Amino acid sequence: MNPINFDHISSNPLLPEVKEAMIKAIGHDYGNPSSQNLSGEEALEALEKSRESVARLVNAKTPKEIVFTSSGTESINHAIKGVAFANAEKGKHIVTSNIEHNAVIRGIKRMTQQGFKVTSVSVDEKGRVNPNDVTKAIKEDTILVSVMHSNNEIGTIQPIKEIAKITKDKGIILHSDAVDSVGVVPIDVQELGVDLLSFASNPFYGPTGVGGLYIRRGVSIWPILDGGIQERNKRAGTENLIGIIGMGTAAELAAKHMEDRIYHVKSLRDLFISELPNYIDEYYINGNPANGLPNLVSVAIKYIEGESIVLMLDDEGYVASTRSACATGSLRASHVLMSIGLDHADAQGTLVVTPGIENTEKDIIGFLKALQGIVKSLRDISPLYSKVTASGS
Amino acid sequence: MNPINFDHISSNPLLPEVKEAMIKAIGHDYGNPSSQNLSGEEALEALEKSRESVARLVNAKTPKEIVFTSSGTESINHAIKGVAFANAEKGKHIVTSNIEHNAVIRGIKRMTQQGFKVTSVSVDEKGRVNPNDVTKAIKEDTILVSVMHSNNEIGTIQPIKEIAKITKDKGIILHSDAVDSVGVVPIDVQELGVDLLSFASNPFYGPTGVGGLYIRRGVSIWPILDGGIQERNKRAGTENLIGIIGMGTAAELAAKHMEDRIYHVKSLRDLFISELPNYIDEYYINGNPANGLPNLVSVAIKYIEGESIVLMLDDEGYVASTRSACATGSLRASHVLMSIGLDHADAQGTLVVTPGIENTEKDIIGFLKALQGIVKSLRDISPLYSKVTASGS
Repeated sequence: MNPINFDHISSNPLLPEVKEAMIKAIGHDYGNPSSQNLSGEEALEALEKSRESVARLVNAKTPKEIVFTSSGTESINHAIKGVAFANAEKGKHIVTSNIEHNAVIRGIKRMTQQGFKVTSVSVDEKGRVNPNDVTKAIKEDTILVSVMHSNNEIGTIQPIKEIAKITKDKGIILHSDAVDSVGVVPIDVQELGVDLLSFASNPFYGPTGVGGLYIRRGVSIWPILDGGIQERNKRAGTENLIGIIGMGTAAELAAKHMEDRIYHVKSLRDLFISELPNYIDEYYINGNPANGLPNLVSVAIKYIEGESIVLMLDDEGYVASTRSACATGSLRASHVLMSIGLDHADAQGTLVVTPGIENTEKDIIGFLKALQGIVKSLRDISPLYSKVTASGS
Repeated sequence: MNPINFDHISSNPLLPEVKEAMIKAIGHDYGNPSSQNLSGEEALEALEKSRESVARLVNAKTPKEIVFTSSGTESINHAIKGVAFANAEKGKHIVTSNIEHNAVIRGIKRMTQQGFKVTSVSVDEKGRVNPNDVTKAIKEDTILVSVMHSNNEIGTIQPIKEIAKITKDKGIILHSDAVDSVGVVPIDVQELGVDLLSFASNPFYGPTGVGGLYIRRGVSIWPILDGGIQERNKRAGTENLIGIIGMGTAAELAAKHMEDRIYHVKSLRDLFISELPNYIDEYYINGNPANGLPNLVSVAIKYIEGESIVLMLDDEGYVASTRSACATGSLRASHVLMSIGLDHADAQGTLVVTPGIENTEKDIIGFLKALQGIVKSLRDISPLYSKVTASGS
């Protein structure tokens, strides 16, 4: 039996239509989109068709504003380093938030080795950036503000539109990591007012290893991959055409079915939240689900370790996580959870549940039952829990 | 009817076994290799199996020395920029050659904007770098030498082993762009003595959008993509697993069939060279096929334009090129051909013919016949040709 996936933030299955499009592309033997022959022209046409689908998904003015990348991470690195290098003579200060993805944090950290300074604004207990803090953080030599659209651990959605008003006013470039938002919730770069927006294909059921960067026309940015003339000289390297075709198909379907999908995953998540007190006690919900990503809930389960829960859930055929896959392998407590004020123990006891479009209500109830048993058995052997219950009795 | 491809340097079809492996991977719904659950472990296993196949193909000491990238171009940018940034305090001088791929040329040029200086050594009339020139070019503050293994326009193979002796002696890092060599001719990083080697999957009939970088253990290099802990912290971003699985399969087959493939494409190329005088006159062969890539011949056809030949060949169902696809879109004469001493007209009149494993002797003869007619009709309308023949009569 296949495991039931409640870790869609780490990995989404490919949609049947995406699989079909990719398999067709594999069979087609496309040429090189940069070749000026018939099979190259066909490849170029397929590439540009995908670019149009992606441009529509984020409401770019023209597909020319979309650059395909090899991941959300490449897109984020391109945005941050590309803007930093291209604008270093104007200034060397970057503003970001405390709860960004590692690609943003480490991308900016890398630039500090080139003399850049960074101000990282804190978030409130729901994980939200206060736009006034961004205003305060901006200096004379600030060239870039990078604030994520939605957080991949607690689902909090940031007031990007308000931040964009501030940056626009001051002529500062605004980048937003929207990897967990694009294709999941409506994203409109015109309405948001961002200059650069990073996204990836897998969050909307396209293949991994494909992403994109929206670059508003006129934004001063360098490539990070130099070489050939691909992607209008913005990103060299022969394209991953099969993956890009998969991403284009996934983008079309995401746009078409977004409302239904949001309704579906939100219903399941809300069922999980409303039923949870019937299965476990002594927990709390991180972030603010009502105003966050519809497909995510983060639960701090007291007195036990999230990693142990995940391992035991895996044994029972359920996949969940303590945080996004990009951050696993680290034993430190999540910087996101610490930033919203959790203590170390509660941060380590946090479980992230992200339902997907293939999940059912039955899956949620089965998951809750499994969780109930696991929490009980882990607490039974938890010295911390026995201490608390003893003192409470 | 499908066109007959003699432009394998720009685009190779996928092998049936590669298609099969990729389609199987699409159907399998792998998890995220960084996830610590069952489907993540399966994904990690598939990823590492491909890494082993690629490591064997270049004779790396351990698969840990292989980093997967999104293209040969990313691999080259990673090598050049990664070494430059990591060693900037030691020195800011880079040595390269005049006939490198644009990814090397522009990658290094980008670093000159960070204060790096570059010395580019010239090549002889066959396109070969003289190792003594590398010795002369090296300065006190040289931190990197980057010389390609084989040239993608004229096929010339460089004396990397000799250059490696020089760089090793002086403690300088040696990178080689081997994109058109790996999987095509035997490549052994131990024998060559390189520290970094760039390659891509498509030249050996794997998918586009996947490449790799060999990083000898202990070499000081920064990532260019920062973020998650993928690829042992050397290259962040969720992997293009489907593409990487295709590359691994292609690598296994390339190692297994290399000798047969070399025999096959070399026979076809040599047939083309030996038969060519029976079809056209007033041409010469660029580079030194006998000591170059077995699958490439570059012919300067006098008095006419290579671009026109390519377009007319396309109409007759044959694909060839004037140079690699990465450099098309540029109207300038090839820097490679100018570097080996061609005048502008002969450089523009050059045709690059790269047979592949699916081509036959019949294809070569058909191609030659088509070429004969095209050269005649283009020369009939060439003012330059009529002038020359008039003066010669």
